Amino acid sequence: MGTISKALELLDLFSPDRAEIGLTDFVRLSKRDKATVHRHLTELAQNGFLEQNPDSRAYRLGPAVLRLAALRETLFPMRKILQPLVIELSEIVGELAHASLLQNDEMSPLVHADPKVHGIQVHFDVAEMLPLHATSSGLAALAFFPDATIDRLMARPLKKHTARTVADPSRMRDLIEGVRQYGLCTLADAFEDGVSSVGAPIFGQGCRVIGALAVAVPTSRAAPRKTHEIAGQLQRYARKATVALGGAYPKTFEDLPPNWSGTKFTVHRESKETEPNA
Amino acid sequence: MGTISKALELLDLFSPDRAEIGLTDFVRLSKRDKATVHRHLTELAQNGFLEQNPDSRAYRLGPAVLRLAALRETLFPMRKILQPLVIELSEIVGELAHASLLQNDEMSPLVHADPKVHGIQVHFDVAEMLPLHATSSGLAALAFFPDATIDRLMARPLKKHTARTVADPSRMRDLIEGVRQYGLCTLADAFEDGVSSVGAPIFGQGCRVIGALAVAVPTSRAAPRKTHEIAGQLQRYARKATVALGGAYPKTFEDLPPNWSGTKFTVHRESKETEPNA
Repeated sequence: MGTISKALELLDLFSPDRAEIGLTDFVRLSKRDKATVHRHLTELAQNGFLEQNPDSRAYRLGPAVLRLAALRETLFPMRKILQPLVIELSEIVGELAHASLLQNDEMSPLVHADPKVHGIQVHFDVAEMLPLHATSSGLAALAFFPDATIDRLMARPLKKHTARTVADPSRMRDLIEGVRQYGLCTLADAFEDGVSSVGAPIFGQGCRVIGALAVAVPTSRAAPRKTHEIAGQLQRYARKATVALGGAYPKTFEDLPPNWSGTKFTVHRESKETEPNA
Repeated sequence: MGTISKALELLDLFSPDRAEIGLTDFVRLSKRDKATVHRHLTELAQNGFLEQNPDSRAYRLGPAVLRLAALRETLFPMRKILQPLVIELSEIVGELAHASLLQNDEMSPLVHADPKVHGIQVHFDVAEMLPLHATSSGLAALAFFPDATIDRLMARPLKKHTARTVADPSRMRDLIEGVRQYGLCTLADAFEDGVSSVGAPIFGQGCRVIGALAVAVPTSRAAPRKTHEIAGQLQRYARKATVALGGAYPKTFEDLPPNWSGTKFTVHRESKETEPNA
């Protein structure tokens, strides 16, 4: 890994639970030597990517990320365009909705909205990258990669985030087929135990996938009828989002049949998985 | 300059007029050799700080900056807090208002609002860093640095952005005294010809300066009465912004006297500058 990547990776150690990080903790969390980490932190701070709390000397994300984000939004206003759609979607389905953008082999969270209608709601971590193979957002996007890219990604060992993460390439290909048919992916407990989600791809020009919309629900509330309703809204909103961003939504997706309930790997058809020759 | 800084500086080449930059243009604009620039671009893209237009292969700012900005806003919601105040201020004074945050020896733009009530309005470039000595935002902040820091900054040659940029250390110290008295700075044509502005410091905990609010007006419209009115509103809004961010606003600022019109370096008292012994 290059010096630049090593430095930029330090920025990924921040999270909603870790607002400020001191030198010692950076060394511990990054498992790198103190002199190197200190040099990287100094350069990141010199460029405004970090700033130091004047009292504790601990580091936090700096104003440069705000300025660059504002510039990107001026040039390509994705957040501005997607935010109202994500809010609307979350209010219609009464659950946490989010949009994320492809960033190499992961999904980078962009906006989320929590309608706060239930006592128990999925908590969304804005700092956490979403893996392609273990989240409905990731798989919704992955399914529309060129086959050669999918082959390359499937050739690597797929991390089991939970007992139910699909890590077997042939089962993964079944999932991908399902996503290509309806433009939808449902997963239960695949990234985090107790969380189910439905994801739908967002496309740019030339039907190239650029991100995904998703709704995440506690698995205990993810009954088939509810999942079906969420899936239908996601199809609508993924198309809306694609059009709003100036992209082209594929004409090939089938309408959701009344008995659709995702793939055979989703929670509500779990019983079928164990049936031989199902 | 270190490798990391060299790579991060490439991100500063984007601007509202330059949304995408190809390799050749990066080489030309950065005046560095092609192999190095290419390696830096590749690492920045691998980490999501850049992404490539799939058609032209040109680079643009990537989704990582949006994610990190969203995280910083979750942890320290400055944009969310300052945006409504900046909008309100711009509507009250009918001119472009903006907030910026200190980033080392420059000000990093955070939010701006243009009430669009005049045919001619100051254009605000969200990508451009504001120098401390040549902008009212910068001087409003600089005036509250420790004296030793001010001495260090004054010891460097001060860039003349226009014929009217104050680059003489003793005149600069007069300006700083004025800012310390009222918590306000006015400048005319100091950063850009034809643009006047009034700036006011925003403070964090312990009255430490963290940023500035400012209003920018075409110099042709910056009559003394209007400047006075803007200055009064800025005093109010800088205090509001400081309180909203959890900071402490100094109690030492004097109320604006009716005849206040900035310092002797502002446009409306320009005549006095040429009066001997004025």
